[in-house]
Amino acid sequence: MIRCLKNPLTRTSHKAFDTMMDLKHYLQTYQETINNKILEFLNSDDHSSRVLQAMRYSISAGGKRIRPILALAAAEATHAPAPVLNVLPAACAIEMIHTYSLIHDDLPAMDDDALRRGKPTSHIQYDEATAILAGDALLTLAFEILSSPANPTRESLSRHLNVIHVLARAAGYQGMIQGQMQDIRAEGNKIDLETLIAMHSLKTGALIESAVVVGALFGSANPKKMQALRSYARQIGLAFQVIDDILNVSGDPEELGKAVGTDLDRGKNTFPGLMGMAEARAYAENLVQTALKALELFDNKADPLRGIARYIIDRKN
Amino acid sequence: MIRCLKNPLTRTSHKAFDTMMDLKHYLQTYQETINNKILEFLNSDDHSSRVLQAMRYSISAGGKRIRPILALAAAEATHAPAPVLNVLPAACAIEMIHTYSLIHDDLPAMDDDALRRGKPTSHIQYDEATAILAGDALLTLAFEILSSPANPTRESLSRHLNVIHVLARAAGYQGMIQGQMQDIRAEGNKIDLETLIAMHSLKTGALIESAVVVGALFGSANPKKMQALRSYARQIGLAFQVIDDILNVSGDPEELGKAVGTDLDRGKNTFPGLMGMAEARAYAENLVQTALKALELFDNKADPLRGIARYIIDRKN
Repeated sequence: MIRCLKNPLTRTSHKAFDTMMDLKHYLQTYQETINNKILEFLNSDDHSSRVLQAMRYSISAGGKRIRPILALAAAEATHAPAPVLNVLPAACAIEMIHTYSLIHDDLPAMDDDALRRGKPTSHIQYDEATAILAGDALLTLAFEILSSPANPTRESLSRHLNVIHVLARAAGYQGMIQGQMQDIRAEGNKIDLETLIAMHSLKTGALIESAVVVGALFGSANPKKMQALRSYARQIGLAFQVIDDILNVSGDPEELGKAVGTDLDRGKNTFPGLMGMAEARAYAENLVQTALKALELFDNKADPLRGIARYIIDRKN
Repeated sequence: MIRCLKNPLTRTSHKAFDTMMDLKHYLQTYQETINNKILEFLNSDDHSSRVLQAMRYSISAGGKRIRPILALAAAEATHAPAPVLNVLPAACAIEMIHTYSLIHDDLPAMDDDALRRGKPTSHIQYDEATAILAGDALLTLAFEILSSPANPTRESLSRHLNVIHVLARAAGYQGMIQGQMQDIRAEGNKIDLETLIAMHSLKTGALIESAVVVGALFGSANPKKMQALRSYARQIGLAFQVIDDILNVSGDPEELGKAVGTDLDRGKNTFPGLMGMAEARAYAENLVQTALKALELFDNKADPLRGIARYIIDRKN
């Protein structure tokens, strides 16, 4: 446990965080910390539980942990005390909500994907019923974790309820679920850029934004800083999706861990499809610049957030 | 709103609550109060949202509202102040969790049921993707509601987190979801009575027990009373399932609003199947007697709980 509590930025937090090497180290250290904590939450003596096995299978399938890292980085940017100690459980809960959404999105009735992160999707590895239940269970476990505050002060209790509220709204029928519904309904129908942006703001943007907000709730973010962080998150959330669409056209299936060209086959509306490849990349770069601008009022504790913004458009998977 | 806040027991709470007429009035009044509040939660100006329509469709399909009524009745039994005002949102959230579980259980990959409460199930009325998302959204909305405390006192904040924790555990992979997984896996395989009881304690028992616990958290239940209420809930939860199985053999499809004989067709393990019809009914009656015994240390404020125990084995649907 003590190892988990070390700040991976110890060596870099007092100076500018501006090399990709620093970021790589930061991401890797936090990925490991998050992975360890997630497995701790999913540890049980009951090895016969098929649902638990399926939950572990999908959440251990090698995600980038961008959302929980964003929560931790936003906590650092807002000078939250002991981010890893205080924010890590909520960060893991966010990853569980994300993983549940992937399991359900991959189902035959939804996107019908057989491969995710280079491995068979849950309904292929197990079966549809197990995949539905494993998704349900990860969503529910997120709220079980979020309702266990580390200490019972009035401030901590209030913050935890606030965190639950923010995440439930972002993940719910006015957020992520609404986005997924719109995505499915739009398949095979031509939509315009504005509609595509609105759809992705819900489908992937809402949870990414809420991850940053959750982190900032543990720090001391005044309304102006909170607004800036929301703006940052909205831009990088959208940039993330634009790059996802680009990688689905021009990415390397091996590096991606999933098939490419599937959006086109499926008649999905995508940014490169609507704008062209070069325009889509320029758009993503523009979004990241706007995100970085939103962070101008933060000190170098926000450098990880800055690095993540750049990472999002440079990534290959 | 004022109408909603009236206690339906005004005329009866000072005397013994022992006629089925009183209970019928009690149940109907609370059903109406709960239905109004649920629709208030699902009200939105966005009439184009297919997910919201599907959420409303399933939750308005005429459920008995046993779980939320149990929460309200347990609050009354433990002398909670203003139960309708304080407990009603949590009670509605419990019904949302219940409805989500029914929508997902009815899916083709699970029990594959086309009819529920006399109406087409969600995936028949809409489609599978919408049904999965509507279930997900009801579960998520439950936690959104539960994280909005009526007042920000330390006690109230702590209670709300506690309620979320109790419900997330009961609904999660160690509770309801585990029970559903066991139920599906047991289909077509003969299991013994002990295994059947353990399975139903999770599948339907856990949420029923948590509804009673949630109500009691708003009242002043000492550990002894809380234990008695848990025992009551476990007995009636199991009795409820035994009667469900009996009605699936001998019920009237019209009164039930769903097909009968489906358990046999599907190779489901049931109480009448394992014990015989007469034995199963005697078992349910015995469970209800034990439940009533557990309530002996409560005054007549627990009469609705007593009435519900009797109602559970007398019901025809």
